[in-house]
This record gives sequence, C-alpha cells and structure tokens, in this order.
Amino acid sequence: MKLEVVILAAGQGTRMRSDLPKVLHPLANKPLLAHVLASARMLMPVRIHVVIGHGSELVREALDAEDLVWVMQEEQLGTAHAVLQAMPGIDGDSTVLILYGDVPLLRASTLEGLIDNAPALLTAVLDDPEGYGRVLRDSGDQLEGVVEHKDATEEQRRISEINTGVLAYPASLLADYLPRVGNANAQGEFYLPDVLSMAVKDGHCVAALRADEASEVMGINDRIQLAEAETVHRERAAVALMTAGVSLADPARIDVRGSLHCGRDVFIDVNCVFEGEVTIGEGVHIGPNCVLKNCTVGVDTQIHAMSHIDDSQVGGSCSVGPYARLRPGTVLADGARIGNFVETKKATIGPGSKVNHLSYVGDAELGGGVNIGAGTITCNYDGVNKHKTSLGDDVFIGSNSTLVAPLDVGEGGFVAAGSTVTRDVPESSLGVSRAKQRNIAEWQTPKQRAENDETQSGD
Amino acid sequence: MKLEVVILAAGQGTRMRSDLPKVLHPLANKPLLAHVLASARMLMPVRIHVVIGHGSELVREALDAEDLVWVMQEEQLGTAHAVLQAMPGIDGDSTVLILYGDVPLLRASTLEGLIDNAPALLTAVLDDPEGYGRVLRDSGDQLEGVVEHKDATEEQRRISEINTGVLAYPASLLADYLPRVGNANAQGEFYLPDVLSMAVKDGHCVAALRADEASEVMGINDRIQLAEAETVHRERAAVALMTAGVSLADPARIDVRGSLHCGRDVFIDVNCVFEGEVTIGEGVHIGPNCVLKNCTVGVDTQIHAMSHIDDSQVGGSCSVGPYARLRPGTVLADGARIGNFVETKKATIGPGSKVNHLSYVGDAELGGGVNIGAGTITCNYDGVNKHKTSLGDDVFIGSNSTLVAPLDVGEGGFVAAGSTVTRDVPESSLGVSRAKQRNIAEWQTPKQRAENDETQSGD
Amino acid sequence: MKLEVVILAAGQGTRMRSDLPKVLHPLANKPLLAHVLASARMLMPVRIHVVIGHGSELVREALDAEDLVWVMQEEQLGTAHAVLQAMPGIDGDSTVLILYGDVPLLRASTLEGLIDNAPALLTAVLDDPEGYGRVLRDSGDQLEGVVEHKDATEEQRRISEINTGVLAYPASLLADYLPRVGNANAQGEFYLPDVLSMAVKDGHCVAALRADEASEVMGINDRIQLAEAETVHRERAAVALMTAGVSLADPARIDVRGSLHCGRDVFIDVNCVFEGEVTIGEGVHIGPNCVLKNCTVGVDTQIHAMSHIDDSQVGGSCSVGPYARLRPGTVLADGARIGNFVETKKATIGPGSKVNHLSYVGDAELGGGVNIGAGTITCNYDGVNKHKTSLGDDVFIGSNSTLVAPLDVGEGGFVAAGSTVTRDVPESSLGVSRAKQRNIAEWQTPKQRAENDETQSGD
Repeated sequence: MKLEVVILAAGQGTRMRSDLPKVLHPLANKPLLAHVLASARMLMPVRIHVVIGHGSELVREALDAEDLVWVMQEEQLGTAHAVLQAMPGIDGDSTVLILYGDVPLLRASTLEGLIDNAPALLTAVLDDPEGYGRVLRDSGDQLEGVVEHKDATEEQRRISEINTGVLAYPASLLADYLPRVGNANAQGEFYLPDVLSMAVKDGHCVAALRADEASEVMGINDRIQLAEAETVHRERAAVALMTAGVSLADPARIDVRGSLHCGRDVFIDVNCVFEGEVTIGEGVHIGPNCVLKNCTVGVDTQIHAMSHIDDSQVGGSCSVGPYARLRPGTVLADGARIGNFVETKKATIGPGSKVNHLSYVGDAELGGGVNIGAGTITCNYDGVNKHKTSLGDDVFIGSNSTLVAPLDVGEGGFVAAGSTVTRDVPESSLGVSRAKQRNIAEWQTPKQRAENDETQSGD
Repeated sequence: MKLEVVILAAGQGTRMRSDLPKVLHPLANKPLLAHVLASARMLMPVRIHVVIGHGSELVREALDAEDLVWVMQEEQLGTAHAVLQAMPGIDGDSTVLILYGDVPLLRASTLEGLIDNAPALLTAVLDDPEGYGRVLRDSGDQLEGVVEHKDATEEQRRISEINTGVLAYPASLLADYLPRVGNANAQGEFYLPDVLSMAVKDGHCVAALRADEASEVMGINDRIQLAEAETVHRERAAVALMTAGVSLADPARIDVRGSLHCGRDVFIDVNCVFEGEVTIGEGVHIGPNCVLKNCTVGVDTQIHAMSHIDDSQVGGSCSVGPYARLRPGTVLADGARIGNFVETKKATIGPGSKVNHLSYVGDAELGGGVNIGAGTITCNYDGVNKHKTSLGDDVFIGSNSTLVAPLDVGEGGFVAAGSTVTRDVPESSLGVSRAKQRNIAEWQTPKQRAENDETQSGD
Repeated sequence: MKLEVVILAAGQGTRMRSDLPKVLHPLANKPLLAHVLASARMLMPVRIHVVIGHGSELVREALDAEDLVWVMQEEQLGTAHAVLQAMPGIDGDSTVLILYGDVPLLRASTLEGLIDNAPALLTAVLDDPEGYGRVLRDSGDQLEGVVEHKDATEEQRRISEINTGVLAYPASLLADYLPRVGNANAQGEFYLPDVLSMAVKDGHCVAALRADEASEVMGINDRIQLAEAETVHRERAAVALMTAGVSLADPARIDVRGSLHCGRDVFIDVNCVFEGEVTIGEGVHIGPNCVLKNCTVGVDTQIHAMSHIDDSQVGGSCSVGPYARLRPGTVLADGARIGNFVETKKATIGPGSKVNHLSYVGDAELGGGVNIGAGTITCNYDGVNKHKTSLGDDVFIGSNSTLVAPLDVGEGGFVAAGSTVTRDVPESSLGVSRAKQRNIAEWQTPKQRAENDETQSGD
C-alpha cells in the first residue's frame, strides 16, 4: 500500500515571540519540522507534502529535499483547508498520514500502528485535558466522534482522552469529505476533525488508537512547551543510552542533540552536551561538563572534565583534558595525551605523543612519542596564509617554545626551552635560539625604586 | 490612601546554623530581606518599618536606606509585640501592611490585592498544611478566625487553607487591638493573628484572600527551605524569559541572580549563571556553563561554552570563547573575537580584532583589525604600577610575544613571533627581538645521555 | 550478642549489559558492594561473609579485606542456597543479618532496628509494588508470611507492603530451616523467604519492620535503577550538608562521591562534583562547575567557577580560579592566589604569593610574596627527570618567562619579562636573557606583500 504524508506547517507561532517561523525552532539543535520529517521518512512514504504559509521561504530553504512537495497555503483557513491544498498531488489509491510540523515527538512505531488501521485517529490520555477536543466512544469503545472543548458538555469535559489531530485516512475518503467540510463555526475555519464524524456517519469504522505516552503528541506553541519537549527528548535519549549499557551520572543532566552511539561500559558524568554524530568506544569515561560535537572516541579513552571536542577523531587509550579544546581536524592516535589549556586544530598527533599544558598546536603533524612542553605555540598564521609544522617521531619541544611555520623538526630533534625556531631542525639535532642570561646584582625592582623615591622625596 | 509597611525581621534563625542573621541569607545572591524590601517598594509606601533584633547591627549595615525606619525589638515576645514596637512611627490614617523578612517570594500584585481589601489576611492552600495555623471560614466563606495547628480539632486539621501571617490592616484597628493582645498561651507570646478574631468579634468583615501559588508565601527557616525558594526563584525567572521570547535549553538549569534582559530569539544553553545586571541583544547564542555578571552583549553575538564575563561590554556579532575570561573593564567592539584560554582586563578591543588563543591582554587599547597571536602576554605590571599597551589599527602581533608596557605599536605595526618588545614600534614597522637560531647536530638529549650512561656504567 | 553478616553478591546482572559484575558497578564512585560493606561494618559484626559467583575473582580483587569471608557459590540455585553456602563459617550462637550486594542504600540505623528484633524481616511500602513479593499480616498486624507476586491473588496484589529479602535471623533457626527449604517452584530455585513461613508455622513471632523510605531498599538491576540510586544518594548528601549549615545553590546539582565535610556558612554553587575525602573550612565560597577531589580548603577561601582541584591543600583566605587546575601535590599557604588558566603540580606556594594567569608551576617551591607573571612556565622535565624550581620570598618573575629547572632564584630576585633563565639568580638580583629589540621601518607584512604581488602580477 502506498503512503503519502501531509505535514501541516503553515502556522505563524505568535506565542513563540520570534522572527523565526515556529516549525524552524530548534529542538535538540534541529528544527521541529526536521523531527517530524525524520519520523515520516522512517515510514517510507512515496512523497511528503509540507503545507507552508508563514515564513514559507525560510522553511523551504532550511529543509528542502528531493522527497518533499512544498504546498503553499496562502490563507490560513483551517486544517481541513490546509490538507485540501495538498490533495492535487496525492495518489488516489494511497493512505494519507496527516502530521503537524509542531508535534515533533511522535515515534514512527506509533504512526505505523495508525497507518495499519486506517481510517484511524491518534488519541492521547492527558492528566489535564483542558482546552483539547475530546474523543467520544460508544459503549463498544468504538469512536463516535470528537467534540471541541468549548462545545463539550460538563460530562464530556471529564473525558481525559483527547484528539491529537493525527490521522491516517484513505486518500479516497479525504477526496470525498474534505471539499464538503464547512466553516460554520465561531472561528470560521474548516476543521479537519469533521472528516471523522462524516466517516462515522457513513458507517465507516474509524479506529481511535491511544498513544502510549502523552508526551509523544505534545504540540509546541510557546517556548515553555518547547523546553518541555526538550526535556522529553533528553529523557528518551538518556533511557536509550542506559538501556544499551551506558552509565549516566544523572539522566536529567545530559543533552544529546543528534546521534550518540556508545559501546558498553561507557560512563558519562554530569552536564555533558553531545551534538551531531558522536561515536564513543567501549570503556570510555567522560568527565563532567564536556561538550562533544561530531567526533569519534576510541576505546578506554578518558575525556576529563570541561573538555570541548569538535569535528575530531580521538584514538583509544588517550587522555584528553581537563580543559582541552580539540578543534576541527584534530586526529589523536592511540595513547596520545592532550592536557589542560591546550588547543589543537587541524593537527595529527601520533601514538603516545603528549601535549600536556597550555599550548596551541595548529596545522601540525606530529609523529609518535613526541613531547611538547608547556606554553608551546605553533605560529601557523602570518596574517595571510596558514603554514604547516611537522615534527618527526620522538621530537622533544622545550617549554615556551615558538615554532614558526613552515617548520620541520626531524626525528629525535630537540628544541631548547624558550626558543623561537624559524628554520628546520634536522633529525637528532638541537635547535636553540636564546639570548645569553645576565644576572645584574643589587638590582632595584620598580617597587624598591618607588619606595626609595618616596623616602627621598620625604619631608 | 497612605501605606505603611512593617517587616518583621528580628528572628535569629537557629535552624540555619549560621553566623549570619537569617534575613541576610542570600536568595539569588541577594539577602532574603532585600527581596521583601523590593516587593514592598513596588507598593510605594510612605515608610517601611523594619523590626530587627538578632544581629540587628549586621542587618542595618547590609540594607540601610533612606526610606527605612529601623525599629529595635529588644526582646522577642511574639509577632504582635514586634508590630507594636513599630506603631509609634506609623500614621494613624494609614493602612499597614505586615510582611516578614523570611518570606521573600511574595509578588507585589498579590500584596496590592490585599491592601485594597484591608482589613485583610493573606492565606494559602497547601498540600501539606501540617504545623500551620488553619483558616476558619463560615458557611458564607467569610473569615471567622484562625486556629493554631496544636489547638485545632481533627476536623480543623483537615483544612488545607493556612494563615500566612501577612496582613493589611487599618492603622487605627491595629492601634486599638495590639495593646490588648494577650500572651496567655503555651509559648507566653503575643500573637499577631489575635487581631483577626478581635476584628471579627467587633463585627468587622476581614477579607481572607488566597495567594495564587503556595510558593509565594513560603517562609525560610532552614537551608533546605532556602534551596526550595531558590528553585522557585529559578523557575519564575525561566518562565519570564521563555514567555518573553528566549529559548532555554533547560529551565531547571539556569540561574538568574539579578536582572537579565534579553532581546528576541536569544538562546541560552544549559547551566548558565547570570548575576547582577545583564543585558543580552537579539539573536545572541550563549553556550553551556557560562557565567555572566554585570555585562551587556550585542546582537547576534556568540558566547561559546564555559566563558566567564564580568563587568564588561561585548559588542554585536562578536565571538567569545569557549573558555574566554573577560574581566572588568573589557570592551569589545562589534565583530571582535576572543578565543580559548584568553583573559582580558581593562581592555578595549577594536572592531574585528582577534585575540584567539592563550593570551593575556590587560590595560590595553587595541584598534580595529588587530591580530594577536597565540600566547601573547601584555606585561602591564612591574610590581608597583600598571602600565598601558596601545596597539593601532591593523597591528599584527606574532605568537608568544611579550609586550612590556608602557608600549605603543603604531598602525600597521608588526611584532615578530617570540619577541619581547620593550620599546615602541612605529607604524608600519616590524619590531623583532630574537636570538639567532643555532642547530647543533648529533645532539644528545638528556634521555639519550641517560641511556648512554646506563650502557657505559653497565658491566 | 554476636552478629554475623551475609551479603549475597553472586548475581551476574545481565540487564546491566556490562563486562563488570553487577555489584562492582559504581554508585557515587564506589562499587555497589562497597556501600553495603560500609553499612555492614557500622554494625560491628564479627565477620562479613560475601557470597560470590559471577565474576568472583574481580569482586574479590576489588574489595578484599581482613574482615571478609569470601564464600563461593558455584551454581546459582537461589537465595536460600546462597546463604546455606555461608553457614559453615557462622557461629551457631550469633544473629545473622542477610544483605544484598545490589541493595546499596540501606542505613545502618534501619539494620540495627532489624537485628534488635530478630527474627525479623525488613519490608517497604511502595507506590508501585508490581512484581515484588507481598507481605501478609494477620488482623493483629503480625507477619503471616510473604507471597510471590505471581502466586498472589488479586486482593493480595493490592497490598503495597513488599518483602525486601533483608532478614535478621538467629543462626540456629537458619541452620534448622535452610537445609529444609525446597525448590519445587517454577524457577526450581531455593528461596530464602521460605524460612519466614517455616518460622511462623513453628510458632515463632517474626517481626516485620517497615523501612522509613522506600528508596533505602531499592535494588539495582539495570542502569536506569543505578541512576535512580545515584539520585537518592545525591539528595541524601545534599540534605545532610544543608542541615549542617551549608548553603547549596541547587541540591539537585551537587555530586558528593566520598565524604565532604564542611564548616558553617559554606556556599556551594551549582553543578559541583566532590570526590574522595574533601574538607572545606568555614565561610568558603565555591563557584559553579568546580571539581574537587581529595583536598582541604581553608576558611574564607574563594574557589571560583570551573576550577579543578585534585590531591591538594588550599590554605585560608586564598583565591583560586576561575579555570584553575591544582594537580596533586599542590599546597597553597594562606592568602595565596591562583588565577585563570594556571596549572600547578607538586608546588608549594607561599603566603600571599600570586600566580594569576596562564602559567604552569610544577615541581616548585615558592616563598611568600612571590609574583609570577602571566605566561610563566617552569621547565621541570627534560624528557627523563623532573627538576625543581625554588623561588625565595618576594621574588618577581616577569611575564612569559621560562624557568629552566633545576633553578634557584634568591629572595627578592627578579626575572625580566620574556627571559629564559637557565642559571640561578642570586638574591636581589635581576636575571635577564633577551635579544636586543630592532625596529625595521617600512616593513611589508606578508599580507601587504601578498597584496603587492597581486597588484604587480595584474595585467
């Protein structure tokens, strides 16, 4: 059976108080609509029709893709009207799934159940159903229809099962009913739920399936609800990780914005943030307050507190941080060590090499067994171009050295502490550039001079 | 109508286990009593009388102000006795609002409602009213009186509406009743709520208004309650921000201690702390774990993770951090960039200038388009005085340079990497101070020497 | 009366999805079993018998101690079988307390009550008792027995009091009953609770004591439960601190993994992590996101945001951080200051001495009143050995200096900014090693050259 998905995404979202169309607001770093699209795509539809209106250009730009049909709804005349705009592009033999760009947490498995039972409505049971349309069932638990909150009797308002608006319907039924939906109501809008009562009246049995969790059907209308959705997303990610064998110091304090794949026996301490695609090997330990984006971390590596890793590859049995900053293009071989207040960028660090303290290593290639002293800086930039620093195996760079690129230090080369080296150092050679030390006795410090001056200028 | 406010703030707060008087314990970085004063001042009273006792000197010192009348209660004989001490300074025609120095979360709007209905009592409905005085109402919902928990019948204890102690009363009634309140009770104290039954008995209709949220009337007696109040404060601040158009990654992980004003479409990531007066422009993005105190941030600026900003002005479209430390007196022009492990202090950084890595820039003035290489240090301090470093437009400072102030580098000046410059560098000139590099071949590293020594000393 | 403790710790813990035996999974940085051992030891038993099976070697290695008797259970035939393995080593006159290696949060006080009432069963009242064995009491509230969930009637399933499995039993009764427990049940296992019905049948009165909090008896079977236990541990630690007079910015955001002793009026900001033995003096203020391990902090010291302290002693009235990293062996005298991006290791910093910015001080001894300029590095490592740097009282090290150890700077000595000093500097002397500065006028920057080249190569 063919599936067509229609996503209603034309609303303005005034209550967001934003210049951004509502469906582009990020949840876990991705637009709301992108979450809906991701769920929809897991169902393998022939097409996805996205009905846009407010901020349509921005929405389209942000999310354009080959499998999307953009449908313009010029006037916001109601949900039935919105779906109707998409009908011309829909195959008459298909099942149509109707989703909402601001309902981002639906699971694909829930939607599959709905499609299999089309015509079907997704419902949810809420602790506080105030304001929502209620679901009416007959004594046999069959759907009779839905009633808007404002039209509901006192008794109906005690029903806690609500209409989510998510429908799976044969296209033929929609084609039949949608043009006949009226707008004789207070708002003067064409309401999609009318197709439910129409179907029931025609003798169709419309399934009404309850979502497992109310959080799945949560709609986002303001930033408080957006934050609630973020919390649900956080909890889901945490539960998935723990179930897979990851220990979390606090499931309420981990943010996964993208995909995080972990081997067994990974430990993640409090308050870490993961963005993009992150892959963590078995036995890795990640300290508190780390930020990891688009990176891989090899088995048994230790990422210490307050480290920040972006677009980098970290090998196995490495030690990173605390306060390490790995910028894009960093590649650490197995057993490498990056210590505190160290920044790397486009840098390949060989096996077992160490950059332990207060250094900047950029546009550099380091062999194995290299030791970079504290305070070392690669001068990769002359104001126009970036130049490369290459250090062979077992090179030792003394502390506070300045390595002016382009520069090559051969295998086993040594740079004396405090040197500024501008020319290559051959292998097994010492590069040194230092002024001779002089000691000047009885030297008056500025402080002493100030004190003496004071004494002499005294009364 | 004239309003006089009396705040009872004489208690010791033994359960705080502290050397500090209870009302000086900070909530959101401000003494409890300061929160009560802030609410009181929004009501525009003619005077605020603060009844003090334990630690009175400390309280007075911490919060003295012109609109306050400090009233000493030498002995702690009960709340009625405390208010009585303030009566001599109160205008007989006024309405008196009675507040408590350890009840910090009352909203001014709630208090306004109370004053408008004087004589009036503020009540609250608690899930667990255990221990509190209960509010007794007649069949017409009119206040009959209050009963202390220990004097209450089983049935009365099932009442969940409690007496908060907050009253708005005509001064004349207080003047009449207070001297007649007795202390014939277990504690031997003069209780303020007695004025309620007195008024009712006299045929006055005393309004009993319910606070919207129980959290408003929360009293602080120990540090657990103090932390609960902090949580309420956190939630209120978060809701206010989100309602105004700010996205919060986690409303449970933002601390606003002072006032935070944000433009639209600001995003604040997890675990940030704001103190003092902070103003954030539209479209600003603040990464996780940042601390911002008394600063302004211009539109579209990015503050990256783990940055720490204090008493500084950040322009628009800047990039700050991660791990940037802006100390007091830092001023960043539009488009400036401060990178990781960089500290600035009393530093003006011109438009588009960059201090990207591992530098200290203090007592400095930088023009536009300046580039400061990694590891650069301004030596502003000679042990006695601080001296200034001035860098003209388009200056380029090579990495690991030491700039000994006072120092001037003219427009377009250049300092070679690794230089220590002690004299001014004229415009378009290169300043360099470097020892010549020597390469010594076949150099034995300490490691090799150690290995050789071992070999030679072998048997 | 003699007490013998038996701890069942032989289970595999498949649902942990781990290579580690379940009882070795860390809660607050310590194996689950270690928590149980700690509670058991507070009861002063004559011996503790630990029944092990899965991963027995690992468990033994991790926790071996003189007071432990390791008992091997080769086959997992049920809890009664497990206890039976320990019986040969148990004194017939003793009381036996039976605990579980995966039930880590029991308080010693709860266990004392149980022992005093032996034979006695510990029970708990759960909101959701689904799956647990229920406790059956007669009309006089006396224990009648327990019934497994799957064997319970509908009515019994409504009982919310559950069997925790924790027992205190006279050894003589266990010796009598355990060999007679059968395995004629669905699982074919020998169940320990059978000794309850046996005792009741024999006319013994078995006490059934309810644990005060359900969280005490929480068992850990997967990582979600492990995280829940961590949350309970966090809350307990927070409440204990607040009750003792410590202010916490957020009790939900402090992790205490080990023992934290604080004086009065300590303030701990959000998201701090404490590990090992930490002692904090009165009036200390700890900023957000700090990590403190095995350290002492003197009175009135300020630890600023994002500091990381390990195995160090910090004196009174010190200022540390933000972004300070004190590594093992750091000792700060009173009034010392360690600023941002500073790393210390095996370093003694004298009274009032300052290392304020971007420095590495390792293997060093500093007197009092020393000032270390920004960017200073002690070169303590030559690739083989670590060498020491000694700075006398009132030494001033200019910024960006490189101190090549072994090195001595005498009292009042001064090192000029940007110097690399390799030889000792006598007292009151200036050590300087600087190349002379040259200024080269009309110098073309690489950028200008690039622009000129472009112009010249233009057509």
